[in-house]
Amino acid sequence: MGTTIQKMMQSMSQRAREASRLMARAHSEAKNRALREMAALLRQHRTEIQAENSKDVAAAEAELGAAKIDRLRITDRVLEDMATGLEEVAQLSDPVGTIGKMWTRPNGMKVGKMRIPLGVIGIIYESRPNVTVDAAGLCLKAGNAVILRGGSEAINSNSCLASILQEALKKGGLPGDGVQVVSTTDRQAVTELLKQEEYIDLIIPRGGESLIRFVVENAHMPVLKHYKGVCHIFVDASADFTMAEAICMNAKVQRPGVCNAMETLLVHEAVAESFLPRVAKSLSEAGVELRGCQRTQTILPGMKEAAEADWFEEYLDLILSVRVVPNMAGAIEHIEAYGSMHTEAIITTDYQRAHQFLQKVDSSVVLVNASTRFNDGYQLGLGAEIGISTSKLHAFGPMGVEELTTNKFVVLGDGQVRE
Amino acid sequence: MGTTIQKMMQSMSQRAREASRLMARAHSEAKNRALREMAALLRQHRTEIQAENSKDVAAAEAELGAAKIDRLRITDRVLEDMATGLEEVAQLSDPVGTIGKMWTRPNGMKVGKMRIPLGVIGIIYESRPNVTVDAAGLCLKAGNAVILRGGSEAINSNSCLASILQEALKKGGLPGDGVQVVSTTDRQAVTELLKQEEYIDLIIPRGGESLIRFVVENAHMPVLKHYKGVCHIFVDASADFTMAEAICMNAKVQRPGVCNAMETLLVHEAVAESFLPRVAKSLSEAGVELRGCQRTQTILPGMKEAAEADWFEEYLDLILSVRVVPNMAGAIEHIEAYGSMHTEAIITTDYQRAHQFLQKVDSSVVLVNASTRFNDGYQLGLGAEIGISTSKLHAFGPMGVEELTTNKFVVLGDGQVRE
Repeated sequence: MGTTIQKMMQSMSQRAREASRLMARAHSEAKNRALREMAALLRQHRTEIQAENSKDVAAAEAELGAAKIDRLRITDRVLEDMATGLEEVAQLSDPVGTIGKMWTRPNGMKVGKMRIPLGVIGIIYESRPNVTVDAAGLCLKAGNAVILRGGSEAINSNSCLASILQEALKKGGLPGDGVQVVSTTDRQAVTELLKQEEYIDLIIPRGGESLIRFVVENAHMPVLKHYKGVCHIFVDASADFTMAEAICMNAKVQRPGVCNAMETLLVHEAVAESFLPRVAKSLSEAGVELRGCQRTQTILPGMKEAAEADWFEEYLDLILSVRVVPNMAGAIEHIEAYGSMHTEAIITTDYQRAHQFLQKVDSSVVLVNASTRFNDGYQLGLGAEIGISTSKLHAFGPMGVEELTTNKFVVLGDGQVRE
Repeated sequence: MGTTIQKMMQSMSQRAREASRLMARAHSEAKNRALREMAALLRQHRTEIQAENSKDVAAAEAELGAAKIDRLRITDRVLEDMATGLEEVAQLSDPVGTIGKMWTRPNGMKVGKMRIPLGVIGIIYESRPNVTVDAAGLCLKAGNAVILRGGSEAINSNSCLASILQEALKKGGLPGDGVQVVSTTDRQAVTELLKQEEYIDLIIPRGGESLIRFVVENAHMPVLKHYKGVCHIFVDASADFTMAEAICMNAKVQRPGVCNAMETLLVHEAVAESFLPRVAKSLSEAGVELRGCQRTQTILPGMKEAAEADWFEEYLDLILSVRVVPNMAGAIEHIEAYGSMHTEAIITTDYQRAHQFLQKVDSSVVLVNASTRFNDGYQLGLGAEIGISTSKLHAFGPMGVEELTTNKFVVLGDGQVRE
């Protein structure tokens, strides 16, 4: 059985590599046609998809909690979102083949960088079957072949979606192997996939921290990932309180279970006594539990103390740690010590501090007077996104279509040799 | 001893991380002053550097071949090249802090990508002590801290150079820990360094294939590398023979021991009989041994046969494998099967084929009518380079100062929250 899975993963990866050469050369028109075909076929096969999905949901009901089952279910709405998502990706401009500029060397050679697909991308994810469709669409747009490995709880849904996506590729004149879904739920498949560095150029894991750590430790090829988002807002002494309160509420309450929600609020000591009671009241009314440093506890008596571990915590819940800091340098020091390089915002009316915060904070998205919730490819104007990277190599922050490509150098000469 | 080295590597990495925050915020002026100070101090301490270098050379004479000893020796010329190299890096424009463009979102937020240093870079290399100076200079210019681990045969030279570089950093008002050299020759130091993913953002190995494979297999952080350069030239049916011959000679003979030298010549069958005897004569006169496919052997009787293994070989020597191909598609198939994604060139007068070759060949540098020897950061106009990447993530091709940086997103708002 072990050898079978090994052979299966190797064969899938080889076929993906072969398909990737054709995908890389496909014209924008062919890719966009395939994307729209995918959308049409998803709508057309709704009954079939939902029947397969029901099997997954029924099996999961014995094992998973309601929230996870909810993420697993392909409702009419979820299916329509998948289809329109694909149509939106078809509308994005195609990065492949673009050359930003060319320059001329003293010997007359023209040199430029041409954007090209990465090749074969492996995506390993949990639960939500919409990732199957979204990721396939973005990888296709960027001219890559993709191998998808979803959670075992979604195996029937994912296999069904895969066959539809492959049908659309073939209808559009592209190789069906451009999108493949791993059809076994055996965990060894992941381990074997991570060894195919000869055929797979990049792995993107999406899911919990343990899945991501497993992938990072076992992958023989590059990995783009983020572990967690411990996002901070620093309310400066000069902040407009109304704005600060609105942004804090949005960042904490609007959708607390996501990576760009605020987890720690840092407040300048000069305004702690005036601002904290006000924001604490609104947060508490919204059901947020506060955990504070000693100074926060003095200002807001009776609140729970934040332990050292709290500052590292990604709650993903209606919990917020709060710390009073002596100045902006103190806020930045806190972020450097406990942050995850994901998203940080300053609320200020002081030009100098806004400028300094933008320069000094080492996170994938740094905002002035806006909610941390904007760290999202769509919100920042990249179109769809495939995830958020908190490591600096290749991509730092939300990854859109362009981040699924790279550049090669092209040189136009007329006989130049090196002296 | 094991624990001591572990602690030493951890401590160096931590200090590098701290220094990197100050390096990242240093103004261009401060970095350029430090670079010029480095050049001045190298010239000033010439006698001392050469005395330390003599110890390495004396020790190496028992063990290494003449070529390796030659690479180890810091002659007056080598020292002056190091110094002028640093002065040239000071002249390059500073990528840190630049924002290519900003765009406005429908809600009025301004969004842009700001170029920032990577953080801490580890460089693991063999032999040549000039890498110590070149790499330190480029990393400094890009605002990074660097940890250098040279070969044990250059330990005295590298330690001496390191103390001079650190003195220059301090004179320029930058932290001495911005450039550190591992002072033990124990191999365990490399293994421990590769585990410091918390403090080191990127590892660049430079040296033989076995060193690079060791680094790739053991590093917990991203690695940028190239294993080998099996570079091809395809002489098309429409090629200008005089140009083709000049380029082939330059690519094979001018400096055969480097990664961008040609290793395999592919010739269109329509011109094989007319072109091959001509180029073979010049190559043979220059001392190049030819190994050919069967058709090449028919045209050039008496030559050695190229075995299957020859097509994969990076000779780094005056040896060339030669194959006759039926057409450009055959040439590209050969490159896909045996190439290393390093450098490929076509010699042609046909517009359509030039266009197709540029599009289809998946290598870090693809040239039309120019020598493969131009795959070099300086030659392509990037300024100095720190190596050539043949993997596609982050950088593909020669890596200059800009490739030692990344981008973060900056957002300027006036109170935006997410709906």
